[in-house]
Amino acid sequence: MLLFTNVTTQAGKDLYVTVDGAYIKSITSERPAGNFERIIDCKDTLMLPGLYNTHTHAAMTLFRGYGEDLPLQRWLTERIFPAEEKLTAQSVYTASMLAAAEMISAGIVSFTDMYMFPEETARAVAETGMKANLCRPILSFDPDESIKDSERLAEAMSLYNEWHNACDGRIKIDMSLHAEYTNTERSCRETAEYAKSLGANMHIHLSETKTEHEECKARHGGRTPACFMYDCGVFDSKTTAAHCVWLEDSDLPLLREKGVTVAHNPVSNLKLGSGVMPYRKYRDAGINVSLGTDGAASNNTLDVMKEMYVAALIHKGTSLAPDSVTAADVLESATICGSRAQGRDDCGRLEPGCRADLILIDTDSINNIPSYDPAYTAVYSANRSDVRLTMVDGKILYENGEFMTLDIEKVKAEMRYTCAHYFD
Amino acid sequence: MLLFTNVTTQAGKDLYVTVDGAYIKSITSERPAGNFERIIDCKDTLMLPGLYNTHTHAAMTLFRGYGEDLPLQRWLTERIFPAEEKLTAQSVYTASMLAAAEMISAGIVSFTDMYMFPEETARAVAETGMKANLCRPILSFDPDESIKDSERLAEAMSLYNEWHNACDGRIKIDMSLHAEYTNTERSCRETAEYAKSLGANMHIHLSETKTEHEECKARHGGRTPACFMYDCGVFDSKTTAAHCVWLEDSDLPLLREKGVTVAHNPVSNLKLGSGVMPYRKYRDAGINVSLGTDGAASNNTLDVMKEMYVAALIHKGTSLAPDSVTAADVLESATICGSRAQGRDDCGRLEPGCRADLILIDTDSINNIPSYDPAYTAVYSANRSDVRLTMVDGKILYENGEFMTLDIEKVKAEMRYTCAHYFD
Repeated sequence: MLLFTNVTTQAGKDLYVTVDGAYIKSITSERPAGNFERIIDCKDTLMLPGLYNTHTHAAMTLFRGYGEDLPLQRWLTERIFPAEEKLTAQSVYTASMLAAAEMISAGIVSFTDMYMFPEETARAVAETGMKANLCRPILSFDPDESIKDSERLAEAMSLYNEWHNACDGRIKIDMSLHAEYTNTERSCRETAEYAKSLGANMHIHLSETKTEHEECKARHGGRTPACFMYDCGVFDSKTTAAHCVWLEDSDLPLLREKGVTVAHNPVSNLKLGSGVMPYRKYRDAGINVSLGTDGAASNNTLDVMKEMYVAALIHKGTSLAPDSVTAADVLESATICGSRAQGRDDCGRLEPGCRADLILIDTDSINNIPSYDPAYTAVYSANRSDVRLTMVDGKILYENGEFMTLDIEKVKAEMRYTCAHYFD
Repeated sequence: MLLFTNVTTQAGKDLYVTVDGAYIKSITSERPAGNFERIIDCKDTLMLPGLYNTHTHAAMTLFRGYGEDLPLQRWLTERIFPAEEKLTAQSVYTASMLAAAEMISAGIVSFTDMYMFPEETARAVAETGMKANLCRPILSFDPDESIKDSERLAEAMSLYNEWHNACDGRIKIDMSLHAEYTNTERSCRETAEYAKSLGANMHIHLSETKTEHEECKARHGGRTPACFMYDCGVFDSKTTAAHCVWLEDSDLPLLREKGVTVAHNPVSNLKLGSGVMPYRKYRDAGINVSLGTDGAASNNTLDVMKEMYVAALIHKGTSLAPDSVTAADVLESATICGSRAQGRDDCGRLEPGCRADLILIDTDSINNIPSYDPAYTAVYSANRSDVRLTMVDGKILYENGEFMTLDIEKVKAEMRYTCAHYFD
């Protein structure tokens, strides 16, 4: 058993938190009796549930800063797609390890990923002790093709069979459609059926750009991407829909009815010029809105603290209403909304009986003094370098700059080498 | 003499930079001959001109996180104004020292400040080795009052006489009108005359909120705040106009004609719900647009790297054009546009003969790997904790987490104590 003393949470101060194995055992204002392997003094920190990055392409750390300040189509066709042609299992593994180190040290305990060579990302997750929902996305452009004949589905199924619920449930495998514009109605319907038959989650890109949204309507008799996916049965599985910048009012009841999570990626949406998602409106419509970083090629970091900060800022600023989004709102999006999206019901909150996925944020660094309310400090003043400790399933993965499950100098060296030779 | 080796700048790689006294002596691709007091290896860093924070209220670090998620009027009247009633010389000095430490460690070499007890901020600047343009703002609500009879002007003049050009020019004293809505036409005209007679710069708040902008027009026969200030002769002195969110197209030629700098405060404007300033449009109109953090009560940090990042993001996102603002644009705003605003002609750029005000940003931290182009890394991936060195006038103020001109533990302890007892 492990004891945290002097704990401040969003709910209270001067608390004691005990961790037994993978779980939080108690949170009390009296010091619990017992023998503890270790006692951690949490003075001048805020304890939060670990952060969730619910939409990313972790291995795209390979392309961090590789195509900048370009319009979306040029960015994709001149930079990203040609670069992705050169992906290998080794480069995806190396980049996933760096991404894991980046996320762990930024207080992220779990991420939802969509990318090529997902088994390499799974290896990185297994090794580093993080949690992740991973998938191999389906793309299908031929209306006569059944996905049963596609290599992609074979890969998705082999990933599922090998990794689903691996590492005591730390790794989950989702089914995935890349997007409406990269699939036929047939592939959407068939993938939806597969997901339902497995009881797997779905992960898709939805209405990220206005162009994509309008082209879908033109293709499908006026139906929006959300309406189209609903009709195909995609949302009958627990779905995370990334971006959703351009949803229409008529889409909101569909998402709410099916419990679809909107993974909001404010930085990527701004950086690629996709637009500003109406965060307040979706939350008011009863939709579960989580946060994501998207890939490092369009962000350029995997940093959910930044997403909280930018989400709070941009929605206050564009609505001209500083009370329209609160620190508590974005903290909720970054934690419990994320665990809910991933289907991890015993995660995402600090409660006895929940998984011990928690982080400590230093409220005494120069940029955080004074700290009249630690939750405000965490959202509006702190940054990734203020994360003091990251724990997943009761295991400390990172503490005071040290990684417990990876050799950071080796991870960095391998990444530098891989990137230096990537385009050879 | 000091020699930097292995230097990467925005302009080139594998450079040598020598610093002689307060000045950059040479930047060469060949290693210069000579005896050097110290040689600093700049491998895996980017050297930039030091950053400028051209609009802040440094001592408002006292109120960091003190009033959050509130509409502007409630924030001001319920939180900030009552808190400011309790300001003392000691609290302003203590908070200015913390602000200086925060800025130095975030790569800021100079700031433009507007606040009460400015002589205390001047003391902090003198001690810490930073640069600053400081002022005591004029406010005058009685149309019959001449500012010659006001205590504020007496304070402003005494500040000017004691501190202008102090510390080898590191400290400059500006004249200041708080804003149009806190002054009469008479106080604006008289302050403008004073500034002209002294040859001093002006510092004002201008069109920060829509309400302020519209109320000015109602008061002054349809004239915008910019037009009104122009008519009062305020812009005849070198002026920094903070915010300028709501300028009208007809205002732009006036600012351009007079060489007025717009100090853009993207984070504060978003956080207080003031709006999104049209950065691209002002730059295209030939206006010098610098960056500022505003006070820590509305930000909540004094971090120009964050301002660069948020400026680049928000203007890409709200214009739906990712190529509308580049990393080079915001780097220019954060450096040379700032030095130009402050009237420091031999600062703000890395050139032989210029003041040695420079910083090193680590391009090899986890969140910065890979770094295909270090300028992109600096703007889109790096954060304040990646600043390795800050030099002002050839003197190192901060290096690898150590402060050379202040005792950071003492500064933090005094700030914690002051804030803990501030509202007693």
